[in-house]
Amino acid sequence: MTAMIEQLRKKLPYWVEASRVHTCDGQVASYIPELAKAPRDALGIFITGQSGETASAGDCGLTFTMQSISKVFTLILALIDNGEDGVFDKVGMEPTGDDFNSMLKLELVEPGKPFNPLINAGAIAVSSLIHGDSPPVQIERILRFFQEISGGASLRFNDSVFRSESATAHRNRSLAYFLKDNEVLGEEIAVEDVLQVYFKHCAIEINAEQLSRMALVLAFDGTDPLTGRELIPRRYVQIAKTFMVMCGMYNASGEFAIRAGIPAKSGVSGGIMAVVPGQFGIGVIGPSLGSKGNSTAGVHLLETMSAELDWSIM
Amino acid sequence: MTAMIEQLRKKLPYWVEASRVHTCDGQVASYIPELAKAPRDALGIFITGQSGETASAGDCGLTFTMQSISKVFTLILALIDNGEDGVFDKVGMEPTGDDFNSMLKLELVEPGKPFNPLINAGAIAVSSLIHGDSPPVQIERILRFFQEISGGASLRFNDSVFRSESATAHRNRSLAYFLKDNEVLGEEIAVEDVLQVYFKHCAIEINAEQLSRMALVLAFDGTDPLTGRELIPRRYVQIAKTFMVMCGMYNASGEFAIRAGIPAKSGVSGGIMAVVPGQFGIGVIGPSLGSKGNSTAGVHLLETMSAELDWSIM
Amino acid sequence: MTAMIEQLRKKLPYWVEASRVHTCDGQVASYIPELAKAPRDALGIFITGQSGETASAGDCGLTFTMQSISKVFTLILALIDNGEDGVFDKVGMEPTGDDFNSMLKLELVEPGKPFNPLINAGAIAVSSLIHGDSPPVQIERILRFFQEISGGASLRFNDSVFRSESATAHRNRSLAYFLKDNEVLGEEIAVEDVLQVYFKHCAIEINAEQLSRMALVLAFDGTDPLTGRELIPRRYVQIAKTFMVMCGMYNASGEFAIRAGIPAKSGVSGGIMAVVPGQFGIGVIGPSLGSKGNSTAGVHLLETMSAELDWSIM
Amino acid sequence: MTAMIEQLRKKLPYWVEASRVHTCDGQVASYIPELAKAPRDALGIFITGQSGETASAGDCGLTFTMQSISKVFTLILALIDNGEDGVFDKVGMEPTGDDFNSMLKLELVEPGKPFNPLINAGAIAVSSLIHGDSPPVQIERILRFFQEISGGASLRFNDSVFRSESATAHRNRSLAYFLKDNEVLGEEIAVEDVLQVYFKHCAIEINAEQLSRMALVLAFDGTDPLTGRELIPRRYVQIAKTFMVMCGMYNASGEFAIRAGIPAKSGVSGGIMAVVPGQFGIGVIGPSLGSKGNSTAGVHLLETMSAELDWSIM
Repeated sequence: MTAMIEQLRKKLPYWVEASRVHTCDGQVASYIPELAKAPRDALGIFITGQSGETASAGDCGLTFTMQSISKVFTLILALIDNGEDGVFDKVGMEPTGDDFNSMLKLELVEPGKPFNPLINAGAIAVSSLIHGDSPPVQIERILRFFQEISGGASLRFNDSVFRSESATAHRNRSLAYFLKDNEVLGEEIAVEDVLQVYFKHCAIEINAEQLSRMALVLAFDGTDPLTGRELIPRRYVQIAKTFMVMCGMYNASGEFAIRAGIPAKSGVSGGIMAVVPGQFGIGVIGPSLGSKGNSTAGVHLLETMSAELDWSIM
Repeated sequence: MTAMIEQLRKKLPYWVEASRVHTCDGQVASYIPELAKAPRDALGIFITGQSGETASAGDCGLTFTMQSISKVFTLILALIDNGEDGVFDKVGMEPTGDDFNSMLKLELVEPGKPFNPLINAGAIAVSSLIHGDSPPVQIERILRFFQEISGGASLRFNDSVFRSESATAHRNRSLAYFLKDNEVLGEEIAVEDVLQVYFKHCAIEINAEQLSRMALVLAFDGTDPLTGRELIPRRYVQIAKTFMVMCGMYNASGEFAIRAGIPAKSGVSGGIMAVVPGQFGIGVIGPSLGSKGNSTAGVHLLETMSAELDWSIM
Repeated sequence: MTAMIEQLRKKLPYWVEASRVHTCDGQVASYIPELAKAPRDALGIFITGQSGETASAGDCGLTFTMQSISKVFTLILALIDNGEDGVFDKVGMEPTGDDFNSMLKLELVEPGKPFNPLINAGAIAVSSLIHGDSPPVQIERILRFFQEISGGASLRFNDSVFRSESATAHRNRSLAYFLKDNEVLGEEIAVEDVLQVYFKHCAIEINAEQLSRMALVLAFDGTDPLTGRELIPRRYVQIAKTFMVMCGMYNASGEFAIRAGIPAKSGVSGGIMAVVPGQFGIGVIGPSLGSKGNSTAGVHLLETMSAELDWSIM
Repeated sequence: MTAMIEQLRKKLPYWVEASRVHTCDGQVASYIPELAKAPRDALGIFITGQSGETASAGDCGLTFTMQSISKVFTLILALIDNGEDGVFDKVGMEPTGDDFNSMLKLELVEPGKPFNPLINAGAIAVSSLIHGDSPPVQIERILRFFQEISGGASLRFNDSVFRSESATAHRNRSLAYFLKDNEVLGEEIAVEDVLQVYFKHCAIEINAEQLSRMALVLAFDGTDPLTGRELIPRRYVQIAKTFMVMCGMYNASGEFAIRAGIPAKSGVSGGIMAVVPGQFGIGVIGPSLGSKGNSTAGVHLLETMSAELDWSIM
């Protein structure tokens, strides 16, 4: 492992610069002002290994909101809270091929439950499953869980992003009411409560280093290799990684699986969390997004590294 | 005309009884308790002619909420308030073939505006166009307009229906937020305000006689033949009747046009308003609905009469 | 009527020139070489009245293939051959809002039969219903029927167009095999036979004058007013006109119904047949097509005339 | 490994019987007579390991046609013939969530190329890429390639199945003509030629033992571990396995990935080929199919074994 990390430290700067040119192929998300402020040409990566060894390059000092990356860990927390049956009663296991905010299959495919927990509709359904008497309690539990996974980082919510999302996310609101109509959100659940939880966990701030620590726990089947503590049952990590492979990169997940072959999850802030099972946790930030919502340079960087280092799990 | 009304008076009771058996082919709407209370085997019809002559049969004493029938007149009021360009900037002119509450074309067809003003998405967009500083003002204007068209009937809102719809209409709320996301509802418009207007006009109570009076105004190109007053510009009546022919009976409009060939609009309460141009206004009530949301017996009755009396405008 | 035709003769040249500028808004169909040869800036109209009085203007000497216009008369012939039940067993009565060659509803909506006889899928199904032992017999019957309706014109097939369509119409072939799979085309029917009939009747050559004669028969409920012969049962004319209003202009039918309000059917060659019930049959040719497949200038011309002369049937 | 095979030999009979009850949950494919003859309650499995050690249980003597399982190897042959760019120019890399024979995304998603090589549309496109001057040459190359992968088995075509499929597969023909229209099948390609190749490779007969040998080559990255010969470049095996994980089990692939987590491909004859990387090749036959087209008992058996033996690659 030491040899590998040495190699990574040496080559990372070159790979980052070679991938950075792909920031030109995309645009920073602009639907809320906070996201639009991110630097388009930034690209950073942070890698953490089993013994805490690290390698990094580029703009890895950037802080960003987790956005869709958070869906992986709310899924895991929902599994811990409800078990597999409890979760899969409300959300399916299939990739869709549709846009992340699509409503087509909710209308077209009986019984109208979200196809998987990583599209927006599914993640909203998952948010409703987090135990807690009220949104603040649910949100607090999520934050503490995320902090635990990240090795004790003092994560916080970006309130400005939360408020902007909450005020403008009409499509997510539309999805949530559709789920309510389809009874995926039960009678006792208030749509605005669920959305508050959803927007909040999407607005958790993180950086590439912290993200790599969270990924590391997934890379070691739920146990933090630095502390030896089992934080997540191995089965739930397996489920999470399977979804990451199949639908972690929106409707470009297949392409990423073919080209990189490692579990990963992207967010609209330009972050990507990637897992090299048994080896590394990786955090990437590159705010410039391609047409399907993934960091153009970040995807290129991970595909390059996976090909060079033979990381594909397939 | 007198001969015709005599003939109608004679035959109506037979036709009504012959059509009443078709109440067995459907079910009363049950999504809110108020609607579910309606008698499944009821069928009534009221016809008003140019000089105020009337014919009626069956359970025409029933009171019911206008539901989707109201969309015809809010469209007309929106045309009066905004002109054709103002309305068709927000809503299209095409039938869809989809369910009345479908979201498919909003997602699939650029620019994501409702295909026509009689599907739910389109009617919600139209509600947002009614002039007035606030929902109560808009609602008051709508009620007064409806009363005027109905020859001064003292129409009122069914508050119980309004509150039930407002509390349970998740799909309509979903549609409205989708429209907000697509910018069909502008930035200045609050979704809940629009929905309040929409649910309110759907909850206006009426009976078959009053409905036949409203239809009569359409049958005479916007002029109330009993008072001689021009209540609606003829062009807007023409637009309304064209939409009624093309999409007045949900996604069974084509079949009704082929079989009956007269402008009509149905509602989920089982009401149907039909127009025999230059001759009659008709109100029908038959709460038992077929799979596409139209009164089974009401449709059969109107198709029978149109065939017998050669009413088709085609 | 004489006064009207005088007025038409006087004004037609001005209206044609005013509409001709809209040829710039479209393009001539180019998917087969024969169609691509048509002059983009051409526009012609021919009107025939009850007593054979005529008015014309512009490039009405052009010959063109009927294309989708032929669907109106194969529908009528199929109704004569099979009755209403026989036809509507295979094809529905609803407009779709989709493109004319769409397959969405065949897959999405049970039982997978074409929504109406004027979209391609429906017209192919209708072609299969024309009586005759073999495609040549069916085709010959169609041609003779069309000639009869057109007052004895010596119509002929454009073999070059037929062969081009037959060789390149992969989408129609795809539609036909889908219909075969859905059992809309029965076991005994060979797909290529049906397509041969379909491509043939689409390739019948006509000019605006002949088209106006065919429309005239529809305008007078199936009786040729010049000979007094009843050529089509009135009920079938009614059905045909209803479909023309609802879906005669592809997925711009609603807009045309709102703006012009008369039964019409367009073809990809730029022809439009329009019916002014009880008054006129109209043939228009303007090869430049808008995005939805209708003659841009032809549509403008008919909308102008209908508004000026108050032709809307609504 | 010997210990493992011993364990397998001991437990397989119990697992097979426990899974056999699930044959009741499905039906044998009946769209062609040959498939309908298969015994509904059959279930067999054959496992081959690195050194040729084997374990088997149940009805593993059954012969069946490969059907969709063949798509994995025609994809690999197409990659060998054309390289990655050559293949992915014609077919995408994304799972769809739709039925295997769906045409929705061909119409809805630009540029209208099949989403992946394992749905029917994609596999037809792949068939067109197999080198060879004519269908017989292409078919012969496919057969020889399959035989080579299977360790020299004398595979043959089931001509009766081929002819039945060819005569009745209207939906596949419809798909192929749609691809022709979208120019996924180029001008020089005759649709019937491609279909002949496609139906032929689907009709290759095999048994569970032979299938396990083919899977074994995938399990060892393209090298036959019994001969040491490299038959497939490792990269192409990686691509094939990735598609098997993401879309090998039709639109139940996600569920299988979550529950079993091993690359697998099913066919409508009830066969499943499964790969335990670095360990085993597996052939399963269980003709009773669930609603999504996979062997009900076969899926249950593989999920049981994967859970018991911790085979998931995730």
